[in-house]
Amino acid sequence: METSTEFLSSSEVPNGVVQPLLTDLYQITMAYAYWKCEKRTSNAVFDLYFRRSPFGGEFTIFAGLGDCLKFLKKFKFSDSDITYLKSVLPATTEPEFFDYLHNLDASKITLYAIPEGTVVFPRIPLLRVEGPLPVAQLLETTLLTLINYASLVATNAARFKLAAGEKKSLLEFGLRRAQGPDGGLTASKYCYMGGFDGSSNVLAGKLYGIPVRGTHAHAFVSSFTSFEELSGIDIKPANGSTEKKNFKELCKQWLSKVSKHLEIVEEQTKSSELAAFISYASAFPTGFLALVDTYDVFKSGIPNFCTVALALNDLGYRSIGIRLDSGDLAYQSKRIRSIFQSIGKTFNVPWFEQLTIVASNDINEDTLHSLNEQVHQIDSFGIGTHLVTCQKQPALGCVYKLVEVDGKPRIKLSHEVEKVTIPGRKQVFRLYSHDGKALIDLLQHVTAEAEPEPNKRVLCRHPFSESKRAYVNPSRVEKLHVIFWKDGKIVRPLRSLQEVRADTIASIKSLRDDHKRALNPTPYKVSVTDDLYRFLHKLWLESAPIGELS
Amino acid sequence: METSTEFLSSSEVPNGVVQPLLTDLYQITMAYAYWKCEKRTSNAVFDLYFRRSPFGGEFTIFAGLGDCLKFLKKFKFSDSDITYLKSVLPATTEPEFFDYLHNLDASKITLYAIPEGTVVFPRIPLLRVEGPLPVAQLLETTLLTLINYASLVATNAARFKLAAGEKKSLLEFGLRRAQGPDGGLTASKYCYMGGFDGSSNVLAGKLYGIPVRGTHAHAFVSSFTSFEELSGIDIKPANGSTEKKNFKELCKQWLSKVSKHLEIVEEQTKSSELAAFISYASAFPTGFLALVDTYDVFKSGIPNFCTVALALNDLGYRSIGIRLDSGDLAYQSKRIRSIFQSIGKTFNVPWFEQLTIVASNDINEDTLHSLNEQVHQIDSFGIGTHLVTCQKQPALGCVYKLVEVDGKPRIKLSHEVEKVTIPGRKQVFRLYSHDGKALIDLLQHVTAEAEPEPNKRVLCRHPFSESKRAYVNPSRVEKLHVIFWKDGKIVRPLRSLQEVRADTIASIKSLRDDHKRALNPTPYKVSVTDDLYRFLHKLWLESAPIGELS
Repeated sequence: METSTEFLSSSEVPNGVVQPLLTDLYQITMAYAYWKCEKRTSNAVFDLYFRRSPFGGEFTIFAGLGDCLKFLKKFKFSDSDITYLKSVLPATTEPEFFDYLHNLDASKITLYAIPEGTVVFPRIPLLRVEGPLPVAQLLETTLLTLINYASLVATNAARFKLAAGEKKSLLEFGLRRAQGPDGGLTASKYCYMGGFDGSSNVLAGKLYGIPVRGTHAHAFVSSFTSFEELSGIDIKPANGSTEKKNFKELCKQWLSKVSKHLEIVEEQTKSSELAAFISYASAFPTGFLALVDTYDVFKSGIPNFCTVALALNDLGYRSIGIRLDSGDLAYQSKRIRSIFQSIGKTFNVPWFEQLTIVASNDINEDTLHSLNEQVHQIDSFGIGTHLVTCQKQPALGCVYKLVEVDGKPRIKLSHEVEKVTIPGRKQVFRLYSHDGKALIDLLQHVTAEAEPEPNKRVLCRHPFSESKRAYVNPSRVEKLHVIFWKDGKIVRPLRSLQEVRADTIASIKSLRDDHKRALNPTPYKVSVTDDLYRFLHKLWLESAPIGELS
Repeated sequence: METSTEFLSSSEVPNGVVQPLLTDLYQITMAYAYWKCEKRTSNAVFDLYFRRSPFGGEFTIFAGLGDCLKFLKKFKFSDSDITYLKSVLPATTEPEFFDYLHNLDASKITLYAIPEGTVVFPRIPLLRVEGPLPVAQLLETTLLTLINYASLVATNAARFKLAAGEKKSLLEFGLRRAQGPDGGLTASKYCYMGGFDGSSNVLAGKLYGIPVRGTHAHAFVSSFTSFEELSGIDIKPANGSTEKKNFKELCKQWLSKVSKHLEIVEEQTKSSELAAFISYASAFPTGFLALVDTYDVFKSGIPNFCTVALALNDLGYRSIGIRLDSGDLAYQSKRIRSIFQSIGKTFNVPWFEQLTIVASNDINEDTLHSLNEQVHQIDSFGIGTHLVTCQKQPALGCVYKLVEVDGKPRIKLSHEVEKVTIPGRKQVFRLYSHDGKALIDLLQHVTAEAEPEPNKRVLCRHPFSESKRAYVNPSRVEKLHVIFWKDGKIVRPLRSLQEVRADTIASIKSLRDDHKRALNPTPYKVSVTDDLYRFLHKLWLESAPIGELS
């Protein structure tokens, strides 16, 4: 069911929306102003980062890098783009600017980034974009668009997975409620990257090799009106024997036995539901999974499911299980598990107690925690709306800030300390403790500072709080920034979606549990070197106006 | 700046994501099961509707219909789709099913819909989809995806517009925070439809003819380090006269006068910010609008802006205004307005007091109400994150329910009354009162019932609450459902985005104010005829199992 698709080689991806014009108008007007005042050749450095991890948590999964590289590769304004821009900019705009735009590409850009699928933290540049000021500026909106939601939804998926526990299978069912068709496709891709096990989205399966899953809806059940409607249905035995058994008759017999065993009134089971199940089983004898809550779970859905599953068993088929889409999921799953156990024992079908119970009713992260407390019996969750729309926090606030022009560091001030930028061209190291867990991230200037080394003490300082500092003696040091794009080429082999998913899972494991817990997680430390601390605060004082009181 | 684009003829729209495979896998598995049990020719009727208006409100704008029609038009599985599906469905799947899929199109589907841009209410079918059961089933997810978010974000935009007031200009700035690149494009389109005045999204401007707007970012200001950096900048007078004025000198003179007038220390203004403003003015002398909060609004940004605007005035150019992106927007806007008034008076530049004040810092619907209470002086709002991600409620829960198969009504039961479906093929009428306002919506079966008429009393009943009913004597009756798609063709001329936007604004006006207010709005009444009421409850009793207590 899985097909291996290269993460980046997906030339098949039909989304032409990602193009240079998918940007804010002010990027174009600024590019013109830069061009006009001879800043067109200035060399700029921009940092892309976020200020706070989403969902009240203390970690974020970095996602969207592959899409950014694809965008850089094809960054080029088309003829019709230029025609359109001429109609938008004022008549006073110099025509040579449009020639300049028309000839632009991303070949003079150098992109440093943290590898996709890494756990990341506030203030750490996920991307460092270097190159001619107007070009680097023109990339801002698109890069933000590609990273913000991808990272947000991958993080959400990772949190759902942590909440559900490793052994549970999580399926993304969000397409119909996603924010636009591509929102749905992006969600499917990055939920899988964040640790989900599959998706209902067929196009995501085709394009990205994500396992696709699904059964049937209530509409399928309600489309049947009576048992008599079933004409010509029959199922051949699994072993290929030609022995004819009348499947409908077999089901009728099992329904009597099951009803008696469950002490329910046989006539109260909906025979139209049984017809739907038989019909579905005849289409999928090897993969029978039924939605059991169209009429009444315990009076009709479960008895009908057991009936068909036992009849299939007579023909040598093992059914998969049931899906619940309403009601009290913990209570129902426990009661259903106990029914499966007792039926398995009574009718000597040992695998019956291991039937899969899938639940899919409006589940969010909190629901998962609450279900755990109730010791539910659900094996698999189908999760839609809350996952893909990230209802708890529907946007990640990544920003793209200018930190250097022509070798001169730039700072953006703000009355809110968290909005002050850290100036200059910086690199990032992750320092690990002796138990292999990530301990602290350290930012420093790219040049003029020695890089941290294992087993060598280094002073790490809080970027803004003078007294917060610590000596760290790392067991291992990881350089997080890697060149991905230079001279118009992707310079590092890219990993498939499946590989990035494995990296994500490993990166989450490298983080201590207290940083990952749902309630009051411990903040992960992000620090600067002593040199960078002094440099930052000197520039801050130089740049801020001094008030006059009188 | 506006280009007129046909709403539907946009063959240029590059989003290939909307295709038959953009669906949930269970639609395909159900289609196979229908096909296998000879239900492939059954005639089905599905209703697409929502159960509750979003954002705690009592109205919704219906949007996305044009996209649905485009989707129907090109509904066809490709060769590679079929190859992929063969790899996903079990080996037992009959090969003829894939031939059947491959030959499918939407030509046997008939689509009734409420016109796009209409104010709509819970339970009212926005679409009625009729046709072969498997085909109508296969359309479900894609139609929901196209309507859910479009309607949600259009409604959000309409609510922001109501909150800001008709006279304020609202600009959508959300691309970077939208849920995926297409999420951003969809947001720009449907925010405009919902009443916004423009967008920063250039691609949306190109594709849909939406007015695009934008100025510059903080990065532009911080890219300048000193006044001396400005080389070769000059601006020609607006009247074309060749009289040479040194614009930088002119600015220096004005800065002294402005500083004196505002009683600020001239040296405290950031000269690098002034350089940035001059540079921007030289690129856009006819459209100067400056972001004034990079360093300090009142000590630097506003004095520098006034300086450049007054120098431009000497050359015969009228500036547009300023943008604020942080801090207390009401307070700052009032103080800025008073500065503009006093400068205009002192230096005899009457239009100065009418300069536009744009605000754009994390604005949501509640912020707008709160700003109104503080009697702000903002003319235009740039709104991003909260608008496009619909933070208050990031998904609209439209559903797609089977209501009839081969002439037999179908009902979906639920313990939650609001989830019970209204069975059968239905049409909808909107009844208006003598003052032209919408009074009540009335659902009835398509056949066998007389249609409501103006000035004729009709009994309208709550669908589930026996005692809630009223006689209504409408002044005008509007039939809401119209055929849009039949025999493989769009059968009704479609309106341009600009026309649909006008329809939306008119439809909102036809709604009483108490339904639209932000706090505790009056619910709009949605009713059924007496016949439909009796029919629904009879079928409900027939379908629900009776409990057994002992």
